[in-house]
Amino acid sequence: MQSSSEQPLYRDETATLSNRVEDLLDRMTLEEKAGQLVGTWAGQLSEFKTVDDAADEIRDHHLGAVASFGWGGAADMRLDDIVENVNRLQEVALSETRLGIPLLFNVDAVHGHAYVAEGTAFPNGLGVGATWDAEAAERAADVTATEVRRSGAHQNYSPTCDVAREPRWGRAFETFGESPYLCGKLAAAKVRGYQGEGIEDSSSVIATAKHFPAYSEPARGEDAAPVEVSEYVLRNVFLPSFLDALDEGVESVMPCYNAVDGEPAHGSRRYLTDLLRGTLGFDGTVVSDWNGVRMLHDDHKITADHRGSVRQTRDAGLDIASVDAVDHAEHLVELVEEGELAESALDESVGRVLEQKFRLGLFEDAFVDPAEARDVVGAAPHREASLEAARESMTLLKNDDLLPLDDDADVLVAGPNADAPVHQLGGWSVPDPEGTDIVTVRDGVEAVTDGDVAYEQGATMNDELDVDAAVDAAADADVAVVAVGEPWYLHEFGPTADTGTEPDEFPNRHSLSLPDAQRDLVEAIHETGTPVVGVLITGRPLIVDWMADNVPALLMAYYPGTMGGRAVAETLFGENDPGGRLPITIPKSEGHLPARFNHFPHPTPIGQDEHPSSYDPLFEFGHGLSYAEFEYGQVTLADSIVGPHETTTVEVPVENVSDRAGTDVVQVYVTDHASPTVTPVRELRGFERVSLEAGERDSVSVELDAASLGRVDAEGVRQTAAGDYSVRVGEQTVGLRVETTYD
Amino acid sequence: MQSSSEQPLYRDETATLSNRVEDLLDRMTLEEKAGQLVGTWAGQLSEFKTVDDAADEIRDHHLGAVASFGWGGAADMRLDDIVENVNRLQEVALSETRLGIPLLFNVDAVHGHAYVAEGTAFPNGLGVGATWDAEAAERAADVTATEVRRSGAHQNYSPTCDVAREPRWGRAFETFGESPYLCGKLAAAKVRGYQGEGIEDSSSVIATAKHFPAYSEPARGEDAAPVEVSEYVLRNVFLPSFLDALDEGVESVMPCYNAVDGEPAHGSRRYLTDLLRGTLGFDGTVVSDWNGVRMLHDDHKITADHRGSVRQTRDAGLDIASVDAVDHAEHLVELVEEGELAESALDESVGRVLEQKFRLGLFEDAFVDPAEARDVVGAAPHREASLEAARESMTLLKNDDLLPLDDDADVLVAGPNADAPVHQLGGWSVPDPEGTDIVTVRDGVEAVTDGDVAYEQGATMNDELDVDAAVDAAADADVAVVAVGEPWYLHEFGPTADTGTEPDEFPNRHSLSLPDAQRDLVEAIHETGTPVVGVLITGRPLIVDWMADNVPALLMAYYPGTMGGRAVAETLFGENDPGGRLPITIPKSEGHLPARFNHFPHPTPIGQDEHPSSYDPLFEFGHGLSYAEFEYGQVTLADSIVGPHETTTVEVPVENVSDRAGTDVVQVYVTDHASPTVTPVRELRGFERVSLEAGERDSVSVELDAASLGRVDAEGVRQTAAGDYSVRVGEQTVGLRVETTYD
Repeated sequence: MQSSSEQPLYRDETATLSNRVEDLLDRMTLEEKAGQLVGTWAGQLSEFKTVDDAADEIRDHHLGAVASFGWGGAADMRLDDIVENVNRLQEVALSETRLGIPLLFNVDAVHGHAYVAEGTAFPNGLGVGATWDAEAAERAADVTATEVRRSGAHQNYSPTCDVAREPRWGRAFETFGESPYLCGKLAAAKVRGYQGEGIEDSSSVIATAKHFPAYSEPARGEDAAPVEVSEYVLRNVFLPSFLDALDEGVESVMPCYNAVDGEPAHGSRRYLTDLLRGTLGFDGTVVSDWNGVRMLHDDHKITADHRGSVRQTRDAGLDIASVDAVDHAEHLVELVEEGELAESALDESVGRVLEQKFRLGLFEDAFVDPAEARDVVGAAPHREASLEAARESMTLLKNDDLLPLDDDADVLVAGPNADAPVHQLGGWSVPDPEGTDIVTVRDGVEAVTDGDVAYEQGATMNDELDVDAAVDAAADADVAVVAVGEPWYLHEFGPTADTGTEPDEFPNRHSLSLPDAQRDLVEAIHETGTPVVGVLITGRPLIVDWMADNVPALLMAYYPGTMGGRAVAETLFGENDPGGRLPITIPKSEGHLPARFNHFPHPTPIGQDEHPSSYDPLFEFGHGLSYAEFEYGQVTLADSIVGPHETTTVEVPVENVSDRAGTDVVQVYVTDHASPTVTPVRELRGFERVSLEAGERDSVSVELDAASLGRVDAEGVRQTAAGDYSVRVGEQTVGLRVETTYD
Repeated sequence: MQSSSEQPLYRDETATLSNRVEDLLDRMTLEEKAGQLVGTWAGQLSEFKTVDDAADEIRDHHLGAVASFGWGGAADMRLDDIVENVNRLQEVALSETRLGIPLLFNVDAVHGHAYVAEGTAFPNGLGVGATWDAEAAERAADVTATEVRRSGAHQNYSPTCDVAREPRWGRAFETFGESPYLCGKLAAAKVRGYQGEGIEDSSSVIATAKHFPAYSEPARGEDAAPVEVSEYVLRNVFLPSFLDALDEGVESVMPCYNAVDGEPAHGSRRYLTDLLRGTLGFDGTVVSDWNGVRMLHDDHKITADHRGSVRQTRDAGLDIASVDAVDHAEHLVELVEEGELAESALDESVGRVLEQKFRLGLFEDAFVDPAEARDVVGAAPHREASLEAARESMTLLKNDDLLPLDDDADVLVAGPNADAPVHQLGGWSVPDPEGTDIVTVRDGVEAVTDGDVAYEQGATMNDELDVDAAVDAAADADVAVVAVGEPWYLHEFGPTADTGTEPDEFPNRHSLSLPDAQRDLVEAIHETGTPVVGVLITGRPLIVDWMADNVPALLMAYYPGTMGGRAVAETLFGENDPGGRLPITIPKSEGHLPARFNHFPHPTPIGQDEHPSSYDPLFEFGHGLSYAEFEYGQVTLADSIVGPHETTTVEVPVENVSDRAGTDVVQVYVTDHASPTVTPVRELRGFERVSLEAGERDSVSVELDAASLGRVDAEGVRQTAAGDYSVRVGEQTVGLRVETTYD
């Protein structure tokens, strides 16, 4: 051991990473190692912990990670408090522990740094999906990484790689939709945005691909219920977006809460080690979801007690137990001392954790600068990036010649989501508007129109307010913009104090229909004869069949973020062309679920003629109208025969044949006729967003990677069968042949 | 080769079975072998074939199996025609083919010989499930075997081992419900009933366990859509009832139409050979479902053409291609001649087929006696057995002191299913009442009551008729019995000519709610103040929340068969105590699906208090009211510690504390606290139906087999983990411990 007067090797910035890690590991006691694998919190979780409580745990139990801000129950939601407490806790770790190992702070900044009042909230997941724009997703993640890092955190529990397979699920809004391809492209983009050139860069954070391996098809739409899909579906629907994130070098992976094939992921060696580290070659950290360890005993009931759960998660391959706190660390020490766990297993995990802390530069500088944080968090260019993303997400479902509105239209703005900043952000955002600066639909319309704007809310989520006032105001207006939809919720529509709804009231997992109070409001306004634009601010694809049949225009706005109301208004008035396309199917009824564009073909024993369609949605995946009009020329393939590891290009001549600029998304679907297993009737395999001036033509090239056409085999590799494929763009279909001899 | 004057060995009844098979196989040409593996039909399928057409195929192409009656489109539905044509076709096979190999006739007599107008139709599957009476199921199968065999068929495509996992599915009514345990017990009972002491017995038939390995959880409830469940669910939900049928020695297994884990079962060597013959040790015949071969190319799109499908099904392990006819036989010959298929593979299948024909005694006597057929089919004791099964199935969902009715009550009988013989039988029965003798609810009430009976239909399935007349008649009656529900349908609610409904009208797979016309009729009658008894004659568990909330009595009658109306009437008037219990959950809405009593436990990240229940049905599995009242004494276990292969007995003292005789079903649920995988919150593991006189007590012993508590492992063996289990009967829970040292 080195003398205390000399700087230890691990503090030597010029030493190699492995030497620093090894040196520090050598110096650590078992208790210090255990502490590095455990996080704690400040705020309200199973119990309320103050920042002082967290400080005590860091000091007395060597805990290495903490979450004091950037999540739902966090102690601090205002930037100044956040930064002050980050620095205070780092000071404890650096000065009041034997080895002075800096803390890792983690946050849930899943759609921007939205659990900070001053932070920039981007559109939530489905809205990002609707942009079909990986660059926009990367930009949003880059902005978020900067805000997160400047406020003191190092790991972001994002992106979600979950593919929306169950619209009733309370977390469907966090996904990029139902296409594994689109989800993968956007998840990869977010990893690039978060991690930048690498986490050594001081404006990057560790990205966390979640929730591995399959979370998003819970039974009954019930959050954290088992995902009981086949291996084939697991590999071909759930894994591809993780493969994309891993290809992008994601530094961390989070298991799902639920069981898959009978095994809760947090306790599954099959998934966390054999599949993730073995088959897929992942070498970053595996971090638990909150309480994911504890749930093995408490909820899944597969271990005898929490100690058994700690042991099982370690055997499975967990590195960091996010908020499992002191208990977990103590169990780890016992398990090693009693010979149930090898200390070398701990060393491996601790090594991974320390390596990330070294690479993040925390041993050199663990503190943040309050002034810099204030400059960066919620900065004007960040808000502009959020606005641009929201603009791109706007998806026009229906337009009977009502939109765009005239510049001087007199407008009634109504509905529970027309002036509801918190609901507009949706979950994973501050549940309290205090200290925020959010542009609502009402704000946006007031800013954009030259006409008069009246506002009558008319209804809450579930209850009528002054409908008569709304009707009267509608009669005086040229058009009524009625913003309906869902409130802020997390996981499953709670807590009710924040949503303002009663248990089992809308929103709940049993119904995707608009509540009577909201529909009645729309209907009453519609009956005045004033044309209604329905604006859907919602996390889930709601069943709006009445509106689709009756009102002349319907705009899907998702949860559009901080600047969302402005993006809605610009779209309604034609300053922004609605270039968003549905990343998820809007079904006709709950009884139609699951409604997916990429379902498998199958026999129809009663006969095809009498068989109702397998896919018969209210609005289909990929749908969205522009104010402009586009025509496609002859679609061609650069190569119509390729090897299974080659790439070809789909060339699509696109012409804007209208008299205004607009945006189109060229969507390339492939049908596999070659596979010896059943394959989807069609699967999205390429896309390109294109904006054209009036009358402009362009030839859009969409890359088509033959490997992406394949089925993911048991080794996690996409294997493309030789044979015939059909490539569909719009109404055109061209043949593609994959030949092994071409490879 | 033997001289023609001498009797060949295979015709020698005294020779051993294997010698006879071997001798005959040796004599057969490739074409003759191919023919034995293929069946044809007479009637309307993809094309109409007359009996003459079938005769030609048998004569010219050596086809070995035929279906000319006993299925939906069959040429013959009247007994005399059936028998005449059976004998005629056998005559062709025996006299006009070189080797004179008798034909195998197969039928779809899934709930009695119900595709024969004169035949006895038993309650359909869910009704049998509701009896919780394996002996009754065995009796019904025994009666059916006798009727089937006397009319000339040798193989019955029954029982279904499918577990109802999707109530929207158009074949849910064929299952015994949602409990794998109950399904397994009843499927095994039906195998015993069909096969009796063995198929050598002249009143037995070959039973066919179907649809292997998993059919009953199709995506969207869409018949034959893929079942994409995990291996864990496949093994623990879908396989157990097949294991029970295999344990009972079932002679034949039919694959499911759909894909499982990406593989259409008909073309899957993994399922048909590795799992079924390898892991599970099955040595009978594998018979295709109709068109199951052809669908590999036409619908699943995994083969290049029908020839490819023939080859793939043979590689997979198919023995008989049910109605794949001449094409299939010709492809088989080509495939062997071109070296793509080994003739030895054909020999193996032909050997199995011939062995069954020898054992059935067909080489000794292939003909049937018309007079004997007439005596047996639809005989009075058979109808009495059907009535008894229907009585046992009656499930009283609600009774606000209205039932039983007074002997002299004046009754209005109304509703689309009150006097609808075809709908009362449900699918897999003659779609035309001509020649049948079916007792409807109207018939039953008229026979049972001493009061006056009025009848007004009031509504069809989807349309109002003379509601006013029904209302007027209700006002004059003491009680209104309104029979609502579903029509006859097959697979998926078609053909519409038979159901009398339009495409996408009720019934369809999107909705389980009663159509407006039916609900309006009930509501109008209810508003007269005359108390309403709702009678549900339906294949699926309908969402009848309005009726459950508003009318005083609700009786679930399923599709109750030939004598069903009598059983309903006897129940309403108290001559039969409703001892049926729901074998399937009745959900609150389509958005609540799947609603299963035996779901897995899981975490609730938003907190247990705010989390709506995972199982919140309108009526739960196992529910059903008796007119009597029962109390349970202290539940005990004969042994509270057992080995994993031992059996214990749950002792339940039951007392009828009412003043009338009645029937109870003691239900034993087990919760597994020992397994390292997630296990259901509770699973049915034992039951016993018990009838007690007023004031009578009995001690009911329910056998509890420790092996049945286990999880089915990859070798198809139930493995019971050592540890603690809870055994629940009624409100009581007792502990059971499994210890390996006890074994």
